[in-house]
Amino acid sequence: MERVFIIGTGLIGASTGLALRAAGFGGRIDGWDTSQLEMASAVQMGAIDGRAASRENALELARLADVIVLAVPVLAIKDWMQQLAPVLRSGQLVTDVGSTKLEIVELARELFPGDSTAVFLPGHPMAGKESGGALLAEGGLFDGAMWLFTPITLEMTAMEREWRGWIGCFGSRMLDMDATRHDEMCAWVSHLPQMLSTALSALLEERFGDAPEIAAIGGRALRETTRLGASPYSMWRDVAMTNSGPVADTLLALEQRLQHVRENLRTPELRDEFTLANRFRQRR
Amino acid sequence: MERVFIIGTGLIGASTGLALRAAGFGGRIDGWDTSQLEMASAVQMGAIDGRAASRENALELARLADVIVLAVPVLAIKDWMQQLAPVLRSGQLVTDVGSTKLEIVELARELFPGDSTAVFLPGHPMAGKESGGALLAEGGLFDGAMWLFTPITLEMTAMEREWRGWIGCFGSRMLDMDATRHDEMCAWVSHLPQMLSTALSALLEERFGDAPEIAAIGGRALRETTRLGASPYSMWRDVAMTNSGPVADTLLALEQRLQHVRENLRTPELRDEFTLANRFRQRR
Repeated sequence: MERVFIIGTGLIGASTGLALRAAGFGGRIDGWDTSQLEMASAVQMGAIDGRAASRENALELARLADVIVLAVPVLAIKDWMQQLAPVLRSGQLVTDVGSTKLEIVELARELFPGDSTAVFLPGHPMAGKESGGALLAEGGLFDGAMWLFTPITLEMTAMEREWRGWIGCFGSRMLDMDATRHDEMCAWVSHLPQMLSTALSALLEERFGDAPEIAAIGGRALRETTRLGASPYSMWRDVAMTNSGPVADTLLALEQRLQHVRENLRTPELRDEFTLANRFRQRR
Repeated sequence: MERVFIIGTGLIGASTGLALRAAGFGGRIDGWDTSQLEMASAVQMGAIDGRAASRENALELARLADVIVLAVPVLAIKDWMQQLAPVLRSGQLVTDVGSTKLEIVELARELFPGDSTAVFLPGHPMAGKESGGALLAEGGLFDGAMWLFTPITLEMTAMEREWRGWIGCFGSRMLDMDATRHDEMCAWVSHLPQMLSTALSALLEERFGDAPEIAAIGGRALRETTRLGASPYSMWRDVAMTNSGPVADTLLALEQRLQHVRENLRTPELRDEFTLANRFRQRR
């Protein structure tokens, strides 16, 4: 691996560049972002060496790269896959960092079947911050984090093996799983907590606005359950669009569970609910 | 104020004793707890000087005290109010630290009308930990915390003024509010987050048990939204029993809000929900 091209030089993309440098990668890293500001920051931080001058130039730089990293939201990843497939060749590796995997996997099977095409490795680093942007990027962002893969090929090419090696150097743990299972599990552990926190924050905002008592009385419980309410729609729209089914399932299950609690506030059933919850926490 | 008697020497009761000592209170502090272990710990930590030998002895010590602090769960507070009312006298102050206030206020109006009886000051320090017990008590527990009151008398006695003075010395801020409003606000900022976290933890436990992927994939979002799942039923039963109406209202409102999010995962309505949530967080 001598040349890397990063599409999307925000938090995850720029952190990937910085992590490669921190791990000792000596090759060239180019980047592209629709925001000139993000790209300029990424260059200044040393996350990328050079930047594409235009979308057309980005496709040319992608043709020269050994590994192309798609670090944009899921729907934009799918767009880039469509644009890249015709211009790439065998021997190259395309990988992504999208939060949902099934739609990407289905498109990758179609566009990168693998004989004469580039290889596509669907990936998802479980790392991030409440806000995005290159300025928050860090070379250590993936240290200790889980980097999930939902592979579509049975055998690894040399380039894929090398790319996984670099991710190991970032300090990430890696886990391969089925894309459907990935999207279902992520709906439970990540998308549901997000939607929940957004819904609770929106409800409190509509109900109390700037009533001073909320600030005066609310403690750690309120702070923690609404923290993710700060997450921007722009980061979550594509998740909601591309994982609607599993996310809706988790929301419905939680609605029913809250109803059960509500109907049993004065019965011993509430004790069973606390017992189950205590058991869940004891395992963590 | 020369003698204080603390009923319930767990986390809050023992911390109150320690806070009094830290603030320079030089009088005597006695205590009582149904658990001999809690009482022994409270004595050993210096939270109380002496302990009642029995429930009967506790009533005798209460008769000798200037201030009686009820630091037990809400239903036990109501029991103690019934037992104390006939034996106490004018000039004494009874105060409590219960998490819900309306039922206590209604009972206090009946039992401590104020002419020839002791004065009752309903209180609620917004401090605590996920677990209880004297061993976790700290003299600094109330430092920076909000200590709410829902007074039933218009004028303060000298003893009440002195007691509030000590709480100020603990480093607490104080706010007087209506009991109905208190229970409604606490349902939103404290009881709802608790029931939510319990319901989500119970749901995940039932669905996934010890599936290793939950631990592997779950990050800060999961950790924070389920943290309160560790809270014991024993601490929350009385809250659910004595604030059922307001808590049920908040649960129903959240159920409806989650349904709204679920039905709009693929529509622009989701953007409005994120916008409201972002606004709520920007105020904090």
